[in-house]
Amino acid sequence: MAQVSFDACPDSYRHWRLRVEGAVAWLVLDVDEDGGLVPGYDLKLNSYDLGVDIELYDATQRLRFEHPEVQTVVVTSGKDKVFCAGANIRMLAASPHEWKVNFCKFTNETRNGMEDATEHSGQTYLAAVNGSCAGGGYELALACAHILLVDDNSSAVSLPEVSLLGVLPGTGGLTRLVDKRHVRKDLADVFATRPDGVKGRTAQTWQLVDEIAAPSQFDQAVRERAAALAEGSTRPTDAGGIALPPLRREVTEDGITYDHVTAAFDRPGGAVTIVVHGPSAEPGEWDADFWPLAMTRQLDDLILRLRTNEPDLGTWLLKTEGDTDAVLAHERPLLEDQDWPANEITHYYKRTLKRLDVTSRSLIALIEPGSCFAGMLAELALACDRQYILDGPPVDDEDSDLRASITLTDANFGPFPMGNGLTRLESRFYGHTEGLDKLRGTFDPTGAMAHGLVTDAPDDIDWPDEIRIAIESRAALSPDACTGMEANHRFVGPETIETKIFGRLTAWQNWIFTRPNASGPDGALRRYGSGQKAVFDRKRV
Amino acid sequence: MAQVSFDACPDSYRHWRLRVEGAVAWLVLDVDEDGGLVPGYDLKLNSYDLGVDIELYDATQRLRFEHPEVQTVVVTSGKDKVFCAGANIRMLAASPHEWKVNFCKFTNETRNGMEDATEHSGQTYLAAVNGSCAGGGYELALACAHILLVDDNSSAVSLPEVSLLGVLPGTGGLTRLVDKRHVRKDLADVFATRPDGVKGRTAQTWQLVDEIAAPSQFDQAVRERAAALAEGSTRPTDAGGIALPPLRREVTEDGITYDHVTAAFDRPGGAVTIVVHGPSAEPGEWDADFWPLAMTRQLDDLILRLRTNEPDLGTWLLKTEGDTDAVLAHERPLLEDQDWPANEITHYYKRTLKRLDVTSRSLIALIEPGSCFAGMLAELALACDRQYILDGPPVDDEDSDLRASITLTDANFGPFPMGNGLTRLESRFYGHTEGLDKLRGTFDPTGAMAHGLVTDAPDDIDWPDEIRIAIESRAALSPDACTGMEANHRFVGPETIETKIFGRLTAWQNWIFTRPNASGPDGALRRYGSGQKAVFDRKRV
Repeated sequence: MAQVSFDACPDSYRHWRLRVEGAVAWLVLDVDEDGGLVPGYDLKLNSYDLGVDIELYDATQRLRFEHPEVQTVVVTSGKDKVFCAGANIRMLAASPHEWKVNFCKFTNETRNGMEDATEHSGQTYLAAVNGSCAGGGYELALACAHILLVDDNSSAVSLPEVSLLGVLPGTGGLTRLVDKRHVRKDLADVFATRPDGVKGRTAQTWQLVDEIAAPSQFDQAVRERAAALAEGSTRPTDAGGIALPPLRREVTEDGITYDHVTAAFDRPGGAVTIVVHGPSAEPGEWDADFWPLAMTRQLDDLILRLRTNEPDLGTWLLKTEGDTDAVLAHERPLLEDQDWPANEITHYYKRTLKRLDVTSRSLIALIEPGSCFAGMLAELALACDRQYILDGPPVDDEDSDLRASITLTDANFGPFPMGNGLTRLESRFYGHTEGLDKLRGTFDPTGAMAHGLVTDAPDDIDWPDEIRIAIESRAALSPDACTGMEANHRFVGPETIETKIFGRLTAWQNWIFTRPNASGPDGALRRYGSGQKAVFDRKRV
Repeated sequence: MAQVSFDACPDSYRHWRLRVEGAVAWLVLDVDEDGGLVPGYDLKLNSYDLGVDIELYDATQRLRFEHPEVQTVVVTSGKDKVFCAGANIRMLAASPHEWKVNFCKFTNETRNGMEDATEHSGQTYLAAVNGSCAGGGYELALACAHILLVDDNSSAVSLPEVSLLGVLPGTGGLTRLVDKRHVRKDLADVFATRPDGVKGRTAQTWQLVDEIAAPSQFDQAVRERAAALAEGSTRPTDAGGIALPPLRREVTEDGITYDHVTAAFDRPGGAVTIVVHGPSAEPGEWDADFWPLAMTRQLDDLILRLRTNEPDLGTWLLKTEGDTDAVLAHERPLLEDQDWPANEITHYYKRTLKRLDVTSRSLIALIEPGSCFAGMLAELALACDRQYILDGPPVDDEDSDLRASITLTDANFGPFPMGNGLTRLESRFYGHTEGLDKLRGTFDPTGAMAHGLVTDAPDDIDWPDEIRIAIESRAALSPDACTGMEANHRFVGPETIETKIFGRLTAWQNWIFTRPNASGPDGALRRYGSGQKAVFDRKRV
């Protein structure tokens, strides 16, 4: 398969139209049937594949940065009688397992991002469901703060995955039904096993939608609701946006290079070394060149590309390079400024770190002399499964005075929580957080070990062997077992809708995807649309 | 495979020795290598299979009921240098998927039961780890309140599943490491990928164990710790126990009959009708014939047998028969009496309901005239995925005055919480619990519908068809999809170690079990011990 690019731009969207009318933006889904990302399926009935979702993600990002004036985002369909039929079934049936899982993960992240915009940016999503709304289409609506369904005696919301495909709604549907919308579990059970779904008044009574409107009143109801949802928004009304120009990026067989982020592949070793470079200039304007935003965009893009295009690189080694003070000088306005750009960049970096948290790769931080794991960049180390700090001069320059350190600031105590609602430090020290809030400052290798900030601190003699062994022994493990183990270790303590979606729901879905009852030759997913009924092994497991 | 029986009795244990010395009980694991439940493997090094765990479950139950004087339970090994090697690998490698999953579930429930005894019965579990302690052996120790490890320079605790078998520790290991014992996640990562584990002082520093003792001081340290853990116990010191005689049970091809519980199989329909009969006599002594205890034991046994022996019966129809007032007369002493038997029976029924909550079968309550879904028995209906109440006379007797109802009492508002810590009513009405605590009384079909206690209330004309269709349409669904869906709908809101183990950890483990990297012909689980290395598909998913 060709490399997937996550670049997109409203002018060249094939599947969405983005229209901004003052405080209200319209995101209109009008999928180009012939525009599938890979050959082999038609995107009928506003069904989607990864390509459609890449455009949606781009739109949600641009709305936050380029359109500070937008307070409500209306998600609706440009097709007649069809809102969205969900993820394309033929695409799913033909995709390898890792593609399905990765696709669902990205889709989930975008939907969580819509909820994040609603909660943290005063940019509230409204689903204007103007036609049939099935599966992933309904899950898209579930990610909105309000669902308005046309009451035309035919348009239903539905989750037909269980009944027609033998799989689960894969992007949060079940969890959001009961945990977010508080649909009663027995009604959720009936709903999720009824292929034709529920419409009109019953959909509202069961809390599957918030509001219904007759076709003749639908447009008016949408406009009124959009205006109502904008009330109390914290978005600025008179600010200029921050344009997001195309990313500069060089991709070769051996790696990817951006301005502030580089990735070097070690294909035989199944690893990639990711280096985040600190800022090289003083903090400047709030624009796309401002280092925290530029670096975040590049890191975000890199994570997405590595996940999708390089599944064999199972271990990610995270490094930083640069000047600690320069990092702190750039994070300071983020943490202190009360204006909307600081808020947006902070939440974008938070979401990018969360992407790292749910990435099914082993993450190892290598903290060496010349690195700048300080404040917001220290979060990268804390997101890792292990942290190694070199206790001595650089391996290749024993006369150097450079020494490694890790610096904790306010950035590590709140602004970048994980999906479980805890900071990465709170997760790390779960059950031992007394006095944790005093753990600010710069820690040398000895101090970092003493305070439990790192896993080990080899000296320059031991470093090469210890790191080599750590990487090699990781590569020798079952990739599946690593994924399961990391998913369980990374998220301690409280659970949220988000962690349930990535943990419990996703794990069940992955299991079901691999089972013959779904993806075997006679399974429901493979037989859908063939006219033949699925054949099930009836044993309950 | 022959039918598995869960009957056990200390006199005939093959793998455990139970010795009571005043306030301290000794549970000594000394597995009979030749005593595997099914042929094909030797239970070497104190490794276990379902048969070993059935005896352990029996012991934990008898300690609670027959030994009110026991305040500390010491779990230790009768073998030299070996505490427990965990679940038998050859058994796991040779078992079908549903067997592995069901085995892990039962093992998990018993370990949760040990924690339940510690928390609610003043009967605290102490792991006296007197030899190497690997995998499920360490998970057994993790279920204890305190782990004392012999510091002999060779005995280690370890979780070798990821590194040697390509699967996860299947019975709570990862979750208990970080969530219960608060092991730092990077140390947990190192520990769970190191096949030889961690011993001595390091094990204590990493919080993998609570205490270490030299071999010469080990026995003394165990006795002192056992005495210390007994301090403050709420167990009575002078009470007689409640003997648990063998269950009376008739098993045929078509069903199972106990005194108070019956199960009738519908094999072609893939369903079983379970009827719980209300008490027929006045409440008597606190003994094994007291209806709440007798009924609970029978229901518990039935759930275990159906899960293990009847995996094709995917839908369980739950009914009750009897007199509502008689049920309430029997639950009253349970709820009101402050003495230990009331406490024990209440928690036992709670654990049995929890078994139902994590049972991977579709559960449908049928509430008909003549039923007694009142108080503690109403929990059975609330545990179901759906509830149907007949709004009219019995289907076969239209002149009858009998009508169905559901009665809520104090029993539905606290004493029988689910694994998520909520009552079944709180879970049902999650997000709408204002005024819920006033929902006491008897509800006829109209009232039950109005208050959201049931899914539907067909009249006697519609009832046969509606119920038939509900059962048939359930049987037409993918069993795997049903399992995943139900696991997500049943547990809303907060998560606990228990729900994480049954939800997230189990789901990941199930996925990993089915993957070629573990159970394929070249997978780690199948190749273990063969001298050949596993061959992995290196793609991360």
